[in-house]
Amino acid sequence: MVLTRTLRIEPDTTTAAMYVVGTELNVNLDRRAPPTCKYFSVQCSHTVHYRISPPAPPQEDSTLLHPLTPKSTLIVTMDAASEHAFDSKLSVQYYRDPREALGKAVLHLTAVEISLDVDADRDGVVETNNPNKGSWKWGPRGHGAILLVNCDSESTFRKSPDTEKPEINQDLKDMSRMVVRTKGPAQLPEGYLLTLHVSQTDAETIRVFRDGKQNSNSIEFSNIFSYFTRDYPLVLSADRLCQVIPYKGGVVETDFFVEGLRFPDKDFDGLVTINLSLLEPTSKLFPETPIFTDKVMFRVAPWIMTPNTLDPVEVFVCSTSDNYPFLKAMTHLAKESGCKLKVCHQFMNRNDRWMQDEMELGYIDSPHQSFPVVLDSPRGGPLTDFSYEELLGPDFGFVTRSALCKEVSSLDSFGNLEVSPPVTVHGKSYPLGRIIIGVAFPTTIHGRNMTQVVQDFLWAQKVQEPIALFSDWLAVGHVDEFMSFVPAPDRKGFRLLLASPDAAYRLFQNLQHDGHGEARLFEGVPGKKTMSVDDILSDPQLRYTNNYVQGCIDWNRDVLKKELGLEEGDIIDLPILFKMDEKNLAVAYYPDMVNMIVLGKNLGVPKPFGPQVNGQCALEAEMSALMGRLGLTCFFIDDFTSYHMKLGEVHCGSNTRRQPFSFRWWNLEL
Amino acid sequence: MVLTRTLRIEPDTTTAAMYVVGTELNVNLDRRAPPTCKYFSVQCSHTVHYRISPPAPPQEDSTLLHPLTPKSTLIVTMDAASEHAFDSKLSVQYYRDPREALGKAVLHLTAVEISLDVDADRDGVVETNNPNKGSWKWGPRGHGAILLVNCDSESTFRKSPDTEKPEINQDLKDMSRMVVRTKGPAQLPEGYLLTLHVSQTDAETIRVFRDGKQNSNSIEFSNIFSYFTRDYPLVLSADRLCQVIPYKGGVVETDFFVEGLRFPDKDFDGLVTINLSLLEPTSKLFPETPIFTDKVMFRVAPWIMTPNTLDPVEVFVCSTSDNYPFLKAMTHLAKESGCKLKVCHQFMNRNDRWMQDEMELGYIDSPHQSFPVVLDSPRGGPLTDFSYEELLGPDFGFVTRSALCKEVSSLDSFGNLEVSPPVTVHGKSYPLGRIIIGVAFPTTIHGRNMTQVVQDFLWAQKVQEPIALFSDWLAVGHVDEFMSFVPAPDRKGFRLLLASPDAAYRLFQNLQHDGHGEARLFEGVPGKKTMSVDDILSDPQLRYTNNYVQGCIDWNRDVLKKELGLEEGDIIDLPILFKMDEKNLAVAYYPDMVNMIVLGKNLGVPKPFGPQVNGQCALEAEMSALMGRLGLTCFFIDDFTSYHMKLGEVHCGSNTRRQPFSFRWWNLEL
Repeated sequence: MVLTRTLRIEPDTTTAAMYVVGTELNVNLDRRAPPTCKYFSVQCSHTVHYRISPPAPPQEDSTLLHPLTPKSTLIVTMDAASEHAFDSKLSVQYYRDPREALGKAVLHLTAVEISLDVDADRDGVVETNNPNKGSWKWGPRGHGAILLVNCDSESTFRKSPDTEKPEINQDLKDMSRMVVRTKGPAQLPEGYLLTLHVSQTDAETIRVFRDGKQNSNSIEFSNIFSYFTRDYPLVLSADRLCQVIPYKGGVVETDFFVEGLRFPDKDFDGLVTINLSLLEPTSKLFPETPIFTDKVMFRVAPWIMTPNTLDPVEVFVCSTSDNYPFLKAMTHLAKESGCKLKVCHQFMNRNDRWMQDEMELGYIDSPHQSFPVVLDSPRGGPLTDFSYEELLGPDFGFVTRSALCKEVSSLDSFGNLEVSPPVTVHGKSYPLGRIIIGVAFPTTIHGRNMTQVVQDFLWAQKVQEPIALFSDWLAVGHVDEFMSFVPAPDRKGFRLLLASPDAAYRLFQNLQHDGHGEARLFEGVPGKKTMSVDDILSDPQLRYTNNYVQGCIDWNRDVLKKELGLEEGDIIDLPILFKMDEKNLAVAYYPDMVNMIVLGKNLGVPKPFGPQVNGQCALEAEMSALMGRLGLTCFFIDDFTSYHMKLGEVHCGSNTRRQPFSFRWWNLEL
Repeated sequence: MVLTRTLRIEPDTTTAAMYVVGTELNVNLDRRAPPTCKYFSVQCSHTVHYRISPPAPPQEDSTLLHPLTPKSTLIVTMDAASEHAFDSKLSVQYYRDPREALGKAVLHLTAVEISLDVDADRDGVVETNNPNKGSWKWGPRGHGAILLVNCDSESTFRKSPDTEKPEINQDLKDMSRMVVRTKGPAQLPEGYLLTLHVSQTDAETIRVFRDGKQNSNSIEFSNIFSYFTRDYPLVLSADRLCQVIPYKGGVVETDFFVEGLRFPDKDFDGLVTINLSLLEPTSKLFPETPIFTDKVMFRVAPWIMTPNTLDPVEVFVCSTSDNYPFLKAMTHLAKESGCKLKVCHQFMNRNDRWMQDEMELGYIDSPHQSFPVVLDSPRGGPLTDFSYEELLGPDFGFVTRSALCKEVSSLDSFGNLEVSPPVTVHGKSYPLGRIIIGVAFPTTIHGRNMTQVVQDFLWAQKVQEPIALFSDWLAVGHVDEFMSFVPAPDRKGFRLLLASPDAAYRLFQNLQHDGHGEARLFEGVPGKKTMSVDDILSDPQLRYTNNYVQGCIDWNRDVLKKELGLEEGDIIDLPILFKMDEKNLAVAYYPDMVNMIVLGKNLGVPKPFGPQVNGQCALEAEMSALMGRLGLTCFFIDDFTSYHMKLGEVHCGSNTRRQPFSFRWWNLEL
């Protein structure tokens, strides 16, 4: 669609106007024509083109006079930028009759080429005047530029997310390049201005900086917000909705850098529009008129979680006063798996060992830049500063959400926040998987839930549509206590592992049937009373409890099958038993093997201390056999005293940063 | 997609379970089978159907034994509701080998039919179990139920919107009927419950009442919120997210009434989901488990504005100490146009005469109910109570938005809020037209704007996507000072009228040319100095001012052409001049004819007091001629002293309630 602008000309008057290449000027000829005018003729420079609407062929070939009607309109265009101001001309001669001229209206034109450009085709390069740059569409055939929340910290001393600093950061790649391209005469005609502007609503979500080293120019900015740097003055922000930008003649590109300040959330869909307008002077008494506006639309990149099927990069664990063997085993596992290991030392963790619960490691991605971003949990234990103090840094972002008015519960820990591998559900594709959280039954009045602000944040990211499971039956209440995902060479590329009391009973019954009823659990655990297989099978209360627990897990199984499009063959039941605490909430009876860390083909599994049969733990043997069929190796890690007894296991006590998806989120079809 | 539920059975044990018709029970046979089991056989009542997955044909025809594998699953269904609890049976016999039975698991089943029903096909009738009831889709082939904000007031004494009253209102049609349909045995098995529930977020936008006179039943509700009425107890609200509902045997329909509390807004997309779950008892120690959930989705109906092309129903004007002639003329016009006239008397308006500015009259619509709704402006003049006190009532709703933290400006008056007739713009259809508001140029820092909360509200309604014009060049700053729409028999069914200084100059120049330069304006206006046509044409300051004004209006003309898909032939320029006030903001030079009231084919036009030519006002003649071509009749109303001198005209001083669109908003393709 061609942009048109209404312009007026007047007999015996010269009108000066600017023209932006690609637009049309509509000049109504009747409005100002002399009262007795019946005809008109048009002359113009070779740089100017016109047509008459409605078409009015000349009356007589010799005179080139056109009849004037109330709707007679000249539609004027030019092909290229002017070399000098007002070097192009058009004139209209009015006539009463072919022999009596009434007056002449003259139009002096200056043409400029102007475009506000972004990487609307998402190839990492800012192209020129993409026709779709003003809107945003998902998918591989979609369009629209992408913006990152600049939530890393380039400085490591007195650090804070770059968005909170008054000046631009030092890493321009964290921002989206935006280019103002102009071509025209050495100067704009007097009083004309180029200005960038945003709405108040959008301005609260971005900042725009100009590359001040480029095209330095005599125009001085009275921009009090750019107090830290002259090289990259702040141009637009919540305090500055519009800003004049420099114009220089010839073919010029001026670079700007756009920074996102907020992730998508309940009240922010992530879309931001930035406008470039050419302003025409009226007089000192009136505001300048925007006679041409170009606009670009960005979408702020969502925060993305990484499932167990992605390659691990770095493992995080705490060092505490009592976990040396665990730490040693994790060090070995990380080394075997080719991962870095980062230890949070005791002076920082103050014996808060639940590395999984304090944070979730994800990333943000754009065609020009990608970096990990930690979502800090509202949990607020002694570990609370770890992600800010130790992770936030250059190309490592930080985001958090604080609960409103309400106390947080155990369900706000991020052992209760997981993500599935990519799935397709009844034809609908989730190439980045789906987020999984645990809550109370919606039919329960007094249940614990994940706090609303975190749920709102997760849902607003859109690209990994969340699923809510029922985890409030557990004392700690985290989904990682009964489920995990491991990579698989076949089927959907993964298996869902579920804790299964039924599978445990079946295994113990088989042991008893095979004459191993006397085999004992917990052998070798200091201070722990051992139990025989017979003891377990003959405990009616334990059976009752585990019937209930299996029902709870089956409920989640049905939801997961439906929401992830899984079949029974995609699920593996792991032999795990639960018992009830004094509040009738479930805790693992022996180390909960499903609460594992997955590092490629290596699994760090809580050592279950199951019944010893022929010198081997029957639970380990079963686990190794089940995982071995998928080409996975179990590393059984003794976490009994330092984690299991404190109601967590290996997964609760660790965290993993993973490679991002090769699939880019903007290629989703939403 | 069939809902499946995992169920377990155990050898030598009878399991009782409920089954909801239309779902599938998945029974894994291996989980609990005796350790040495190799085969199984299945028997069941004729009311029960099963299949085996993966398919396992009997080993030997004579024995009907199937081989047991780790994945062996029975898929159980039933066709119809049970007559008595647990009247259907299925048993699985386990075998070591065909001659050695190991034990038998027995399943007792009670089937019920349950559905939560709404008018998902939007025909005004609640159908049974619409397959699309759980989601919402726009368009004539769309689906999903509709909810009204119950913003009228059934009581007229001590009134308030019905949503603010603790009890149900007396007009059930203001709410959406929702039906729980059940079929089954006389009682649910012990401990099973039916419950309605919503999320916390959704609960803040609705209330649900039950028809308590229906199916009255021995179940007693401890619902402290239904303190006003026993007939329609409050079931769900922000304080009550789930509620057990009564079950009665046989074929039963229980009616509920759902009420919307909030219009769509920046933080509310208008969608609300309500769930019905069947809960299974576990034990006193654990919460009941939802074993079946049905859900319905509503969208809250948007507030819709009515353009001038819709038939008028009622006209509103103020009676003041000085406007008797105006009131008399308006009375005549309303009568001629077949409209009611409602006068707001002086004791209420306290001489605030700007009826247009205090409120905008629109409506809400659903398949079962529609009524007018007044949007009260945040303007807050002496008229501020009119819409609440005089309009809010049975089937007349009220909604308002209060500005946050900021003082309101003149641009918050609703003379600055209009709506176009239906248009199609480059193939995109707007069958309810587009809302039009006036703001400052986005490139101006110190301009006046419409307050953000009202803008957010207007944009959130979605069905009449707003357009922002530039009106801050006017002293009062309202779009109705330079534009209006009138019905037309041809083209798009309407014309856009624009104030045009150029058209005025052209008319005056023609008068001068025809020898009427001495004709005088303002003749007959008490205390007003007359002006001749020659005076006007020779005033360079006036010409300068009107050049600027024409530029401002042309800017809006270009926006309106683009955003409404208009051509020049759709626009009529009216001869109107402006002058500048002491702040260099524009006011009409003579009564601003575009600021008219449109009542069908009759137009109430401010009497312009233009130059008298041959005993007739030349401006009236021009206006009558232009409108007459469209079959419209101008009634020129003298508003000079009582409105024009106070910077308003006929439109500013009146308001019109119109018939709703015949097009229903949910048929939009958004």
